Amino acid sequence: MNFGSDNVCGVHPAIMDAIMAANSGTQGSYGNDVFTRKAQEQLSEVFECDLEAFLVSNGTAANGLCLAAMVPPYGAVICHGDAHILVDECGSPELMTGGAKLIGSNDPMGKLKLESLERILNGFTRGEHDPKPKAVSVTQATEHGTIYSVNEIAAIADLAHARGMKLHMDGARFANALVSLGCTPAEMTWKSGVDALSFGCTKNGAMMVEAVIFFDRTLAADFSHRRMRAAQLLSKGRYLGAQMNAYLENDLWLDNARHANAMASYLSAALEATGRMRIPLPTQANEVFPIMPRALFELLLSKGVVSYRWPGQGPGNDAAGEGEVFVRFVCSFMTSKTDCDALVREVEAWNGVV
Amino acid sequence: MNFGSDNVCGVHPAIMDAIMAANSGTQGSYGNDVFTRKAQEQLSEVFECDLEAFLVSNGTAANGLCLAAMVPPYGAVICHGDAHILVDECGSPELMTGGAKLIGSNDPMGKLKLESLERILNGFTRGEHDPKPKAVSVTQATEHGTIYSVNEIAAIADLAHARGMKLHMDGARFANALVSLGCTPAEMTWKSGVDALSFGCTKNGAMMVEAVIFFDRTLAADFSHRRMRAAQLLSKGRYLGAQMNAYLENDLWLDNARHANAMASYLSAALEATGRMRIPLPTQANEVFPIMPRALFELLLSKGVVSYRWPGQGPGNDAAGEGEVFVRFVCSFMTSKTDCDALVREVEAWNGVV
Amino acid sequence: MNFGSDNVCGVHPAIMDAIMAANSGTQGSYGNDVFTRKAQEQLSEVFECDLEAFLVSNGTAANGLCLAAMVPPYGAVICHGDAHILVDECGSPELMTGGAKLIGSNDPMGKLKLESLERILNGFTRGEHDPKPKAVSVTQATEHGTIYSVNEIAAIADLAHARGMKLHMDGARFANALVSLGCTPAEMTWKSGVDALSFGCTKNGAMMVEAVIFFDRTLAADFSHRRMRAAQLLSKGRYLGAQMNAYLENDLWLDNARHANAMASYLSAALEATGRMRIPLPTQANEVFPIMPRALFELLLSKGVVSYRWPGQGPGNDAAGEGEVFVRFVCSFMTSKTDCDALVREVEAWNGVV
Amino acid sequence: MNFGSDNVCGVHPAIMDAIMAANSGTQGSYGNDVFTRKAQEQLSEVFECDLEAFLVSNGTAANGLCLAAMVPPYGAVICHGDAHILVDECGSPELMTGGAKLIGSNDPMGKLKLESLERILNGFTRGEHDPKPKAVSVTQATEHGTIYSVNEIAAIADLAHARGMKLHMDGARFANALVSLGCTPAEMTWKSGVDALSFGCTKNGAMMVEAVIFFDRTLAADFSHRRMRAAQLLSKGRYLGAQMNAYLENDLWLDNARHANAMASYLSAALEATGRMRIPLPTQANEVFPIMPRALFELLLSKGVVSYRWPGQGPGNDAAGEGEVFVRFVCSFMTSKTDCDALVREVEAWNGVV
Repeated sequence: MNFGSDNVCGVHPAIMDAIMAANSGTQGSYGNDVFTRKAQEQLSEVFECDLEAFLVSNGTAANGLCLAAMVPPYGAVICHGDAHILVDECGSPELMTGGAKLIGSNDPMGKLKLESLERILNGFTRGEHDPKPKAVSVTQATEHGTIYSVNEIAAIADLAHARGMKLHMDGARFANALVSLGCTPAEMTWKSGVDALSFGCTKNGAMMVEAVIFFDRTLAADFSHRRMRAAQLLSKGRYLGAQMNAYLENDLWLDNARHANAMASYLSAALEATGRMRIPLPTQANEVFPIMPRALFELLLSKGVVSYRWPGQGPGNDAAGEGEVFVRFVCSFMTSKTDCDALVREVEAWNGVV
Repeated sequence: MNFGSDNVCGVHPAIMDAIMAANSGTQGSYGNDVFTRKAQEQLSEVFECDLEAFLVSNGTAANGLCLAAMVPPYGAVICHGDAHILVDECGSPELMTGGAKLIGSNDPMGKLKLESLERILNGFTRGEHDPKPKAVSVTQATEHGTIYSVNEIAAIADLAHARGMKLHMDGARFANALVSLGCTPAEMTWKSGVDALSFGCTKNGAMMVEAVIFFDRTLAADFSHRRMRAAQLLSKGRYLGAQMNAYLENDLWLDNARHANAMASYLSAALEATGRMRIPLPTQANEVFPIMPRALFELLLSKGVVSYRWPGQGPGNDAAGEGEVFVRFVCSFMTSKTDCDALVREVEAWNGVV
Repeated sequence: MNFGSDNVCGVHPAIMDAIMAANSGTQGSYGNDVFTRKAQEQLSEVFECDLEAFLVSNGTAANGLCLAAMVPPYGAVICHGDAHILVDECGSPELMTGGAKLIGSNDPMGKLKLESLERILNGFTRGEHDPKPKAVSVTQATEHGTIYSVNEIAAIADLAHARGMKLHMDGARFANALVSLGCTPAEMTWKSGVDALSFGCTKNGAMMVEAVIFFDRTLAADFSHRRMRAAQLLSKGRYLGAQMNAYLENDLWLDNARHANAMASYLSAALEATGRMRIPLPTQANEVFPIMPRALFELLLSKGVVSYRWPGQGPGNDAAGEGEVFVRFVCSFMTSKTDCDALVREVEAWNGVV
Repeated sequence: MNFGSDNVCGVHPAIMDAIMAANSGTQGSYGNDVFTRKAQEQLSEVFECDLEAFLVSNGTAANGLCLAAMVPPYGAVICHGDAHILVDECGSPELMTGGAKLIGSNDPMGKLKLESLERILNGFTRGEHDPKPKAVSVTQATEHGTIYSVNEIAAIADLAHARGMKLHMDGARFANALVSLGCTPAEMTWKSGVDALSFGCTKNGAMMVEAVIFFDRTLAADFSHRRMRAAQLLSKGRYLGAQMNAYLENDLWLDNARHANAMASYLSAALEATGRMRIPLPTQANEVFPIMPRALFELLLSKGVVSYRWPGQGPGNDAAGEGEVFVRFVCSFMTSKTDCDALVREVEAWNGVV
């Protein structure tokens, strides 16, 4: 039972088939292939607009390159304090941007609040002694499995734009957020003011592909140079294109996300029903964040249940106390009800002794 | 007939099979999987030594990261003036190293000559006004399809080490050089003084995988952070590992390279025999570099023969003249005699009118 | 009445004389002059040890270059959340280090607490997804005019060294802290475990000179290249050397600092005695940090009293409330009792209406 | 007799006086002072246009910061192969630009020829695999003491602009070139298409000040952040401003340059007249570049004549042969006829034995 991350599962069979099917004959290298071109067209259709899309191999690259196109080296990015770009990428955005500063809010629930953004921006009073705030980055779904509403995104975009800043969305779990909101890709992005998007696929069934998408197409100027320089232009680009083709075809990406979200909801309710843990964060996408006794956590570990002990103690007012731990379970397109039930049975079987 | 690059062909079926076979069940993410661990063991065996190996997705990343581990931001790398790191990577080594300088010799034949290296190093007379030379980089096989002998590598290594520098080998076409020399991987690398190697696989039948290999294991200190920061730690790392596993198993990599080299030799001889072009560079690996009339080049293009018109005019004393062009044909594991024969027939069919 | 910063005053006459005296004849450029060499010797004497000292033109450069020598691009620096390196240098340490991360504690009083340091370090649980903590930086005197005791410095150094990290001291107001503690320069630095020091002079009477001092001399390897590359090797270096010569001669630096501190103490007591403001931070060096009614602040401004309205509201438990502001007054070697008395009279003259 | 560099001499008395005069009272820090503001006005007058001027402490900083404003990290700068930015700044432009590439021509005489520029630009055929050429940099006067005519500058500017690039002038010896040409500052810069200028003063009599000048004022956007981040915003900025004030007042800068040039002409003629050396480069500014027997060079050294043995052998067709060396003598505002005569006498006194 592996709920450790969306990355521990393999590749969806339809995507694997597409990779294999792309293997015949010669193709132009470095993205000059029919699969990559088709992927760009598909993305325009999915998002119902002209856009510039560039395929890269992973989400850290997509984030860093998006930010590099939006923020100069002397710039600053405002985000949530638990944002992947801030705490999980070993300074990759700093490398890609040439040293820009990332400044995180400490809002609860993983969501950057409008008031926090405003307060942080109002703190830029030192003129040239401060970096220049140039972008806001939101993660959708957030690192805590929560989701910004379309209105919340639009409000952040409005504030950012009013201050001369751009809005980036880290969409590592874009599909999970989208099906949760039930809106269109366009509504969750450019119609709400998003300028650039890291469009994630890997966590949701692909092997290794993400797209850097610029809705503000001026940001795409010279971007092919940035991507090459960051070693993200793959020579046999057809295999990135083929993944994206299959991912978007027949709504595979939406089906995968719906399944993962449904499993997370099911698991969340079932775990809470055991009465042996509490779930302080709403389960809005494909992640469940319980607080449980450390003894239970260790028992599950010993039973082969893989999960991730989240750094820290969880949300401020409802944090893990003495003897408790804050844990993340992730469901993916491969997670089955059987997996969930087996996990719940292990929890129920615990004798409750701490 | 596509002789444009080794990158235009697909993935070898054995490697594709391995990718598919790796798709079942869960695996640890970020390289914590059985395939990646096996790849590291295989590389130790192939090179007959303890080494540190890190998988990345492409050769530009491998090169830049090798150099970043060897050269500080205020350092310099000496290489050939046509080296991939110098002229084909849009400044990626500069990004990865934090701004080190690459200084190229203008030797003929794509090979950095010992005397050129010495002359360049003797030019560092300005103290702190100069960058500090910290590494030499050789490409094996070179960008011109030529090969350093083991003795030539050792002589360069000796000079580099005597000056307190490290030796990097860009092995994008490592296997082609190896089978051409007929020596062991150990002999062509650490036994000759190579400290770090970009071990290429993609051009020789893989989908997207290369290894950064440190024979000088002190260079590997903290390297996992460097790789992560450069966005080269893939979450579903198993698919890199699986490629490497199949690449090295049953000598697939050597067989692929032998085939490609054999095709290049065959093609080189046949093209020269047509009397319609000359081949100023020896065909030592899987690339053929003829100089031909521009009219012939354009005819071939119109017949669907894809090749690469190399920038510049070719080797100094024997360069392309008025009305001539310098061209590269690349053979791969997929190139067939039929392909070669078809190309030769087109050349022979040319009426010779310029 | 200008209490805005230590930078608003001019250069001490003895230092100006030394600059003029250095103007005769030719001297080697780029630091190869007798004044610079003498400065290095003086610093060794002052600190009673062999050390490596490099002159630069300002404190931001000294800090960034110290950190660049201690922290790789994938590294992290732990400091206080109000540290100059973190919030006042527009990302200069990020430029100089090549993108390292600065992580600030939110301790009160401007001092990084040992427990905060430990807690932050214990949060590095993500392996290669985290940057690698490589240095701690403390500011002495702090940005809030407070001072670390020698024991506090030593405890931080011990923890840093135990974790394989180096300790940097930002000594922009080094002399002010030193005379306040009444210890020796050696005791406040290398005897307490400081590895590298930004030795400030400009705020304390010089024109534009600071020294990067390495007590851990291994950090000085290749440092002259780093300084040159950062455009901090001045061609007419004699004028930096001459400033340092005069600064250290006849204890000018200590006298200047004693005077500035004495003025701050005098001012602090007198301001508090007016009953019209409170001073929540102890006045330990040359800065006074009162919280006062905004109306009083504005009155003073209108009377030509220059001070700095500090960003934020001041120390947590004792912060500025509604209608109040947190303000900084700085005394320098030029500040006179007359200046202080004039300021106090303006405060006393306020009619107290908010 | 020190002809080693323009940097070995001190500061002109008028400038020293201005520094001292600026020392009274308080002034706003970080460039918010009356001297700095006056300097900006003076520069506008001197160049007869609205411009943006920023004072920095040295020429390497001015160059790197100019280029950083013109060239993105993935960009390229074309210059002469002996340009200071390429070979004398330890990679400082790479640091400041975030890793841009500098590409040098190997034209004779230190001047980038129009045809070389065109040829280099035509070599950018690899699309995103190449960096993007964004700026041309010319040095006026050049590193070889030669001078671009106004027409030559304009032709380079036209080509640069036609390709979407900007033109930078490294004016470390701007005044020397200007009085040599006898044109106006405006004619030698923006009227000829120069977009950004490193306006040098230190070599020509100042202590430590240069100006970054943007004639294309769009380049100045956010530049104050760039300067701060590069640690080039000095806190006691008045002393930079005061230097510039005196430098420009009463044509001091022009007088100094005229004197230095006149001394160089005088010395050049006298040295050639000795018949013991030849001078393959025209003496157009304040530098003389003879080729002389090594034995003579060593004799002069032993007699206390300081000069600079230039790396390499000198201009292609007329380079130093066996037993000869290529040497630079620099004259400054302080050089006297007596100095020149003394040098010439030493040369004449040589017995000619090699």
